[in-house]
Parts: sequence; C-alpha cells; structure tokens
Amino acid sequence: MNAPPSSPAARAATQPDRSLGKPLTGWRLRLYTIIFEADTVAGRRFDQALLLLIVLSVVMVIIDSVPTLPTSVSRVFDVAEWGFTALFTLEYVLRLLCVQKPLVYARSFFGVIDLLSILPTWLALLVPELHVFIDVRVLRLLRMFRVLKLTGYVAEYTQLGLALKASRRKILVFLSFVLMVALIMATVMYVVEGPANGFTSIPTAMYWAVTTMTTVGFGDITPKTDLGRLVSSVMMLLGWGILAVPTGIVTTEMANLRGRPPTPTTRTCQNCLTEGHSPAARYCLHCGSALPEYLRD
Amino acid sequence: MNAPPSSPAARAATQPDRSLGKPLTGWRLRLYTIIFEADTVAGRRFDQALLLLIVLSVVMVIIDSVPTLPTSVSRVFDVAEWGFTALFTLEYVLRLLCVQKPLVYARSFFGVIDLLSILPTWLALLVPELHVFIDVRVLRLLRMFRVLKLTGYVAEYTQLGLALKASRRKILVFLSFVLMVALIMATVMYVVEGPANGFTSIPTAMYWAVTTMTTVGFGDITPKTDLGRLVSSVMMLLGWGILAVPTGIVTTEMANLRGRPPTPTTRTCQNCLTEGHSPAARYCLHCGSALPEYLRD
Amino acid sequence: MNAPPSSPAARAATQPDRSLGKPLTGWRLRLYTIIFEADTVAGRRFDQALLLLIVLSVVMVIIDSVPTLPTSVSRVFDVAEWGFTALFTLEYVLRLLCVQKPLVYARSFFGVIDLLSILPTWLALLVPELHVFIDVRVLRLLRMFRVLKLTGYVAEYTQLGLALKASRRKILVFLSFVLMVALIMATVMYVVEGPANGFTSIPTAMYWAVTTMTTVGFGDITPKTDLGRLVSSVMMLLGWGILAVPTGIVTTEMANLRGRPPTPTTRTCQNCLTEGHSPAARYCLHCGSALPEYLRD
Amino acid sequence: MNAPPSSPAARAATQPDRSLGKPLTGWRLRLYTIIFEADTVAGRRFDQALLLLIVLSVVMVIIDSVPTLPTSVSRVFDVAEWGFTALFTLEYVLRLLCVQKPLVYARSFFGVIDLLSILPTWLALLVPELHVFIDVRVLRLLRMFRVLKLTGYVAEYTQLGLALKASRRKILVFLSFVLMVALIMATVMYVVEGPANGFTSIPTAMYWAVTTMTTVGFGDITPKTDLGRLVSSVMMLLGWGILAVPTGIVTTEMANLRGRPPTPTTRTCQNCLTEGHSPAARYCLHCGSALPEYLRD
Repeated sequence: MNAPPSSPAARAATQPDRSLGKPLTGWRLRLYTIIFEADTVAGRRFDQALLLLIVLSVVMVIIDSVPTLPTSVSRVFDVAEWGFTALFTLEYVLRLLCVQKPLVYARSFFGVIDLLSILPTWLALLVPELHVFIDVRVLRLLRMFRVLKLTGYVAEYTQLGLALKASRRKILVFLSFVLMVALIMATVMYVVEGPANGFTSIPTAMYWAVTTMTTVGFGDITPKTDLGRLVSSVMMLLGWGILAVPTGIVTTEMANLRGRPPTPTTRTCQNCLTEGHSPAARYCLHCGSALPEYLRD
Repeated sequence: MNAPPSSPAARAATQPDRSLGKPLTGWRLRLYTIIFEADTVAGRRFDQALLLLIVLSVVMVIIDSVPTLPTSVSRVFDVAEWGFTALFTLEYVLRLLCVQKPLVYARSFFGVIDLLSILPTWLALLVPELHVFIDVRVLRLLRMFRVLKLTGYVAEYTQLGLALKASRRKILVFLSFVLMVALIMATVMYVVEGPANGFTSIPTAMYWAVTTMTTVGFGDITPKTDLGRLVSSVMMLLGWGILAVPTGIVTTEMANLRGRPPTPTTRTCQNCLTEGHSPAARYCLHCGSALPEYLRD
Repeated sequence: MNAPPSSPAARAATQPDRSLGKPLTGWRLRLYTIIFEADTVAGRRFDQALLLLIVLSVVMVIIDSVPTLPTSVSRVFDVAEWGFTALFTLEYVLRLLCVQKPLVYARSFFGVIDLLSILPTWLALLVPELHVFIDVRVLRLLRMFRVLKLTGYVAEYTQLGLALKASRRKILVFLSFVLMVALIMATVMYVVEGPANGFTSIPTAMYWAVTTMTTVGFGDITPKTDLGRLVSSVMMLLGWGILAVPTGIVTTEMANLRGRPPTPTTRTCQNCLTEGHSPAARYCLHCGSALPEYLRD
Repeated sequence: MNAPPSSPAARAATQPDRSLGKPLTGWRLRLYTIIFEADTVAGRRFDQALLLLIVLSVVMVIIDSVPTLPTSVSRVFDVAEWGFTALFTLEYVLRLLCVQKPLVYARSFFGVIDLLSILPTWLALLVPELHVFIDVRVLRLLRMFRVLKLTGYVAEYTQLGLALKASRRKILVFLSFVLMVALIMATVMYVVEGPANGFTSIPTAMYWAVTTMTTVGFGDITPKTDLGRLVSSVMMLLGWGILAVPTGIVTTEMANLRGRPPTPTTRTCQNCLTEGHSPAARYCLHCGSALPEYLRD
C-alpha cells in the first residue's frame, strides 16, 4: 500500500505522479459510484438490497440448521442457496471490474470476506464431502461483517468504535489482570475441590473461574466442599468488584465522547479504497490520486 | 388524525374551523374531567380507585393460576372476575360517552388496551373453550400499562422515558451489534460442540449465546469439550465488555438529564386526546380545538 | 414521641418546660455516657467489646447450624449461648436504668431489637419445643443491625444512606416498572411454556422472570420450546437494559455526593434518644431537653 | 526497615550516616541495573525474558494438570520443570548477590515469592510424597505476581491501583454491609427452605446468598417452596441494587482519576529496594542512601 504523503500540501503536489490512471469513466464510474458509495440515491438502494440479501441468506443458514426441518423446505433452501451464491459471485466480479486496482480490493479486509462468503458453496461442488461442507459454511456468516461497512454512517457505531479504541490499552491490561486472578483462583479450586468434584484439570478450573467471575454461573461445575464454597464466595465478591472496572471504563469513555460530532461518509477512493472523503474533496486523502466525480444521482 | 398547524399562531387562527363542536357541558364535562384528568381531587380519586381495581384483578389472575388452589376459592374468583369485568366495561362505555370523538379514543393506544382488557371474559361466554380462554386472559394483564398513564406525574418516569428515547438510536445500533456477535458465536459453538452436546441447531445456540452474553447462564446447555469451553470463556469476557455499553449509555443519559425540570400534567384534549396541557391553556396544542374549562374541584 | 418545635429559637424557648427532669448524675450519667455514646474512650471501648460479643454470638449460631458438628462442641455452644444471653440481658437492663425515660428506649428501633435478641433463649426455657426454638433463634441475628449504629461515624455509610435516600422515589418507581415487566413476561412464558415445562403457575413464572431479569439465572426452571427460548432471549436483553438503570441511578447519586462532608457523632439525648449532637451542644435538637455533660474521659 | 526522615531536607542531611556502604561497583552494579531496573535496554530485555520463562513455566503446570496427557509429554515436562527451577534458582542467587542488604530483599514481598516459587520442586527431592508435591506446586503460580512489578510502567495499572486504594475504606464498609445482608438472607432461607431443600446449614445458605446476590446463580442449590422463591426474588432485586454500588464507586473513582499523569519508573534503591526514583535522583527518597548511577546502556 502506498505510504501517505506527510501533509495535505505534499499530497496534492505528488498526486498526478502517484495516480495510476485517470478516474474511471462511463459505466464503470457509474457502477463504482453505486457499489462503493452510499451517499447517492442509487448507492443507498444498492446497499439496502445487498443488506436484505445477506440477512435473508444468513436467516436461511440459521433455519437450515434446525434438525426437525422437513426435507421439502431443505430442498427449496438448497436452490435458494445457489441463487444467493450466484448473486454474491456476480457482485464480487463487478466489484473487481470497477475499481482501478482489483488486487488492492481483493486483498482488503472486505475483499477477503466477500470471497470467503461465496467460496464454500463453490468448493462443495468439487469436494462433496458433507461434513467439511457444514464446517466451512459457517464462514459465510462472516459476510455479516460487511454490514458494518454500511453502518459507517451511523454516528453511534463510530462513537462505539472510538470508545473501544480509546480504551484499547486499558482493556488489554485489565484482561491480563483478570486472567491472572482467574488462573490463581482456578489453581486454588483445583487443589481444594479436586477432580472428584468436577475440577478435572486447571484448564477446566479456569473455565469455571471465568464463568464465576463474569457472574455467568452455568452451574455445570460447582464447589461441593465447604472450603471450596468459601473460596468461591470470596471469588464472586472479588469478581464483581473486578468486573465493575470495564463498566467504569466504558462509562467514562462514553461521557467523554459526548459532544464530539462524528462526520462519516462513504465516498471511496478508487485507487486505495480509503473511505470517508467529504463531498467537496477532489483528491484521496490517503494516496493522493484523483477521486471520481461525486454524483448525487 | 389532524396534522398539527405549523406554528402556535397558525394553530390559534385555524382553531375555530377545526374544532368539531363546542366543549362538552354539564355531566359529560364533569365526567370527562374526572375520568381523563388527574389534576383535580375527583380525578385523582377516580384514578386511584381504578388503579386499585386493576391491581386486585391482576393479583386474582395470578393467584388463580396456582394449580393447588382449592375449588371454593376458584369459584369466588370466577364471580369476582365477572364483577371486575362489569366495572371495567362500565368505565369503557363512560369513556366513550364523554369524549367528543369516541372513535379517536377507541383507536388510541389506551382505548385499544381498555377494550382488550374486557373482551376475553365476554368472548368466553360465546366460545366456552377452556384453553382459548386461558390463552386470551393473558391480554388482560396489558391493562396494567394503563397505570403508566397515571404515573405521567411522577417526574422519574418521565426522566426514564426521556433517557430511553434519547438513546433510542444508540440502543438499536447496539442491539444489532450484539445480535451479530451472538450469531457468530452461536455458529462457532454449533460447529465446535455440535448437536451431541446440546447445541442442536443454530437458533438453540443463539439462545445459549444470549444467555451467556447477558451473564444469565441458565446452565441447561453448557459446553462439554475443551475447545468449546475456551471459546465460551472468551465469549463471557467479551460479553461482559459489550454489555457494559448499555450501562454506560444509561448512566451518561441519566447524568445529563439531571436538572431538567419535567412538568407533566394530565389535562387532556377532548378532540384528539393529547395530554399535558398547562392549567392556563385554552386551546389544544396539537389539534387547536378549544379545551374544556379546567376545574380544580 | 414529642413533636419537634418548629424552629431552633422556639425549641430553645420551650425547652425548660419540656425537659422531664435534670440530666442524670453520678454512676447513671457515667454509665449513660459509656453505653449510649461512642465519642469518649470508655464509650468506644464498650462499643468495640459489644461488637465483638455480637459477632462471636452470631458466628456461634452459624457454626451450630452445621449438621456434622460433634455433640461435644454443640454442648459447649449451648453453655456459651447462655453466657451471651446473660451478658446481653444485663446490658439491656443497664440501658433501661440509665436513660431518663426507659419506655422511649424500649419502644425505639434498637430497643425492640435488643429485646428480641435475648427473648428467644429465655422463651425456650418455658416452651422447650425444638422447632419453634430454631425458628425464633433467627431473630437474634437482627442484633447485627445494632452494629450499624456504631458505624454512624464511618463517613461512607452515611454517604451510602444519603445516596439511597436521595434516590428513594426513583427506586420505587423503577421497582414497580420492573415488577410490571416481570409480570407480563411471566404470563407470556406461562402461556408459551406451560406447567409441563416447569412454569407451573404465574407466581412460579414470576420467580423465573426475576431470576432471568436480574441475570442470576439459576437454571432450575428453563424454557424448553423454541418460542419460549426466543421470548426469554428478548427478555434477557431487555432485562439487562432495564437493570442498567439502578446502576445509573447509584453512579449518578455517588458522583453528586462527592465533596459533601458528613459530620456524624453519637452523643445521644437521654430524653428522646436522638443521636448526632455536636460536642458543643447543650440542649437536644429534637426535644429540647438539656443534654448530659459531654465527658471526654 | 529504616524509618524515613521527616522531610527531604532532613533526609539529605542524614544520608551519609544511614547509608551502609558505597553503591556497588563493577559487575555487581551492572548486574543490579539489569535485574532490578527496567528502564535500560539490558534491564528491559532481562525482564522480558524472565516474563516469558514465567509464562512458559506456568503454562506447563496448567497443561500438566490435564489427566489425559500422554506419559511421554509428562516426562518432557518433568525435565523442563527442572530446567525452569534451575534458572529461577540462579536468578534468585544473583538477586541476593547484587543488592547491598540481601536480607532486606529476602524479606521483601517479591523476595519471599521468588523463594516460594522455587522451593516446592527442591523440597519434593527430600520428601517425595506425591500429594504434598501437587499441593505445593500451586504456590509457584504466585510467581505470576512478579509480572505486576514489570507493569509498573503501564499507566493504566497504576491508575487501577490508585482507584482501588482511594476506595479502600469505602469498599471495606460496603463488603461488611453486603456480608450482613447475606447473613440475614441466608438465615431466613435456612429457616424457610430447610435442610430438605439443600440449605443444609447457615454457611451453605450464605454460599447460596452470595451466589444469588452477585447474580452468579449456579443453580446447585435453589429454593423449592413458594415462600422461599418469593424471598429469593426480593433478594435478587435487592442484590442487584446493592451490587450497583461498587460499579458506582469504581466509575466515580475512574472519572476522578482521569487527567492525573502517572509517572512510574523502576529505578530501585540498593539499600531498601524502594522503586520509582526519577532518572535525575541521586539519593533514595525512602532511606536516603546514595543511588547507583543510572546507566542507560
């Protein structure tokens, strides 16, 4: 990926050289605006239709997993499955066609997910082993992540993302602390209760410790001895105290984020696929290549 | 429903034409003030009595569901049930009588609920099938929502409603995000654990995922394999982090709402049933028709 | 109880008439200072010794409930039980002796609890039925509440109390809302799942609903049908959202309470047992009678 | 341990007398800088390597507890175990060698933990009883706490520590209140449900009460009677309200701590092992002895 120039001025200067060609024209420009941007009427409609198709396809996978489903419905689903796969494959090919550098798209996060979401059905043709098919079909659900792209508008998602990013280091430090406490607690319980009472190994005891500290408390493994119950009582009170911390982090970050106006757009550079250019922008803020004209439809 | 005029001035100008008749007079005005308003002494007493009746009737339905209840008590309850239904039917008819446009009331939220709360008992006369009866009786509990109307005064309810309304979009975005994570987790667990360990289908796995992420953790379905336990440990920690977000949202909104003085009233327009007019108001702020005189009793 | 005068001035004026006698003198004043006040050295020591005795006595009751306890230990505990009861009875009599109006003390909150904490053991002498004895012994644990009196100093307890009192109305409104939601959810689940799946009555379903909404999730009653699981999934997400509200209330109140310096004392009026007089005060701020001299020991 | 002088000035004045010898020189100073300080390149590398070794050793103990582990892997682990123990023993000896007062180190918190982490393996040579061995091996996990020392840099850990320390008294008061409520609830449930329904003793009932109040809800002990279910429903709602308090405490403290820049270092005094001296410091801020030169490597 091209390194961004050090300043907007430098970027504007170097941009004619860096651009690998003029912006696309004719039907490719038109298609590009529809598929990759969502600020125009046509682009919005395309994204809404795509979202609907993804949700339908995912719902079908969910229902298809129910064992009591009649065979006739299952057969209808198999046909619909092929329809969805055909549509998504067409969409993938069109995406490759209308960008200037197809390889950049193919290697981008959503490019890989778009490919992965159609691959399992096609592969099942060549290798018709049932079990593998079911295992890989799961990856199709990752297609849902593409939905997140659409929600770039929604100010709240951006806010959430910012809050999580701002607390990234805090969260990591906190998680390592929680895991340390969980490990010590798990070892204590493993010694106190032992394999006879369900704590068969330290990993199993850690699963129990996490279950307890997060206050989930499945109850599949529980202390049986009086000492074990005392230790886990202490642990539950401790666990609640410790897990009040992420709530504190998130609340503090949210209170801080209030007022910052997020201004996301979906105008995308054809060269490096960077999003978020303002309607008035003429050049990509990341790679400096000329942006295609902004069509309001 | 009439579209509200664009400004208070415009509203005042158009109001003589829009009003479908003079405000009610005599016993109908008096009744109207008692039934629909709660700022007067009589209105307050009526609402308190109604509230008591609703609670009594609901408590009776609750106790009636206990299978070990003696038959004699059951019979007393059947009689009381008819008494309550008669009273609530009378109230419904009076409400229809004392408003200017009975159809607007009948189609309003509380009008529908008022009707639904008396319908099941009457319908059971014509169609005396026991099972249907029990199924429909549940709707009577919706009558409880009418209580919320009374609490329009209570500043805290208004605060709560404002906080929830202010965060509406945030909550929707958050919920869709949670469902996405739950779906992916459910699919992973469905593949890892499989039907043999209780994860019989993706919907079942999603139920388990929601149970786990909200830290409810019933324990009717639990991971049995080591990999499944690892995945669900990660999920629990993730789930807690994610669900710290609504706490953050609510806390932030509550901190923001402090100090805003809510000023709710129950003075209701006879024409369009809009509530909350100030004691000094002479015309409805929604449809512009003249308000009945404000009687302090 | 005497109604407090309307203002400090009025209180000071009426005070000679209201006082039912001079402050106690000699050993009774000395005893009074030790037993009822905790700002002096002797008073603090007395309270610490009493606290220790209460904790010891409670711990003994706890251990005594373990069924695997050897008979010899049980017998030692029975003797110790009589020792504690004798001491607490002596303390109760002394408290009655050294206040001006023993009846006011006897009818005060802690007076009643002090009596209840010694009554069960004495009553068991007359009515030696085992089951009743065990049932009543529980009341002795209420004696623990007396500990709260001692912690009047601890600024944090006062803060907690203030925060809870400030949110009292908010909490009541919130609780009634939660119960309403729980009732509707319980009824829906009672209809959807039915007695066959453990939801034997609406009260049982409400117990389940509270278990689920508070994210406790025992798992003794769980939905078995797909519809029931869908409904309870919605309920869990809803429940979490709803129960984020008290966290928000408490956090907001706590943030507000920061900085307010609480100034509790234990100097007690001999006449009406009101606490919290400043060391410089000469008359009770509640009933206006003269306070006994403040001895620093 | 030496009492710190009352002021920096007094400390500087008394320092030549207090210092028990000149700072170490040659290889001992160099070793000291590497082992005890982490601000230099060599020191950082040493700490990273040590951290890796500790994690590896702990992971080995965890995996070794799995009962289905093949014997061959177990044997490899036994050898690796000896390797780790040898390395940690060497490190312990070097630490003793390069400080001015080995006894101060040996009696410090991390000195004791360092010793405890190597002792079990050596002791197992003399007393080859299997059970004891497994029991003591657990202590080796305490070695993980040493990791916390390294994270002295991470601003967030310091923040967490400050937040917890600032709320120390509040948390103690809160915990005693929670335990009191849990005890009363436990006694009520013990009387209501009784040993027949799993509440075999008051300690068991307290374990259940803590499980319920922290919303963990294992479900191994659950109320069976209607009264018991009513009491525990009340308790769950109460429990949630009570446990909203620590969340409030932590959130308030976190909001307060924002903005305070923490400035931790690992430069350690050779005399009393106090950490956190600034790179410009020449004398220990705790005992006043001369600090070894600060080598940036």
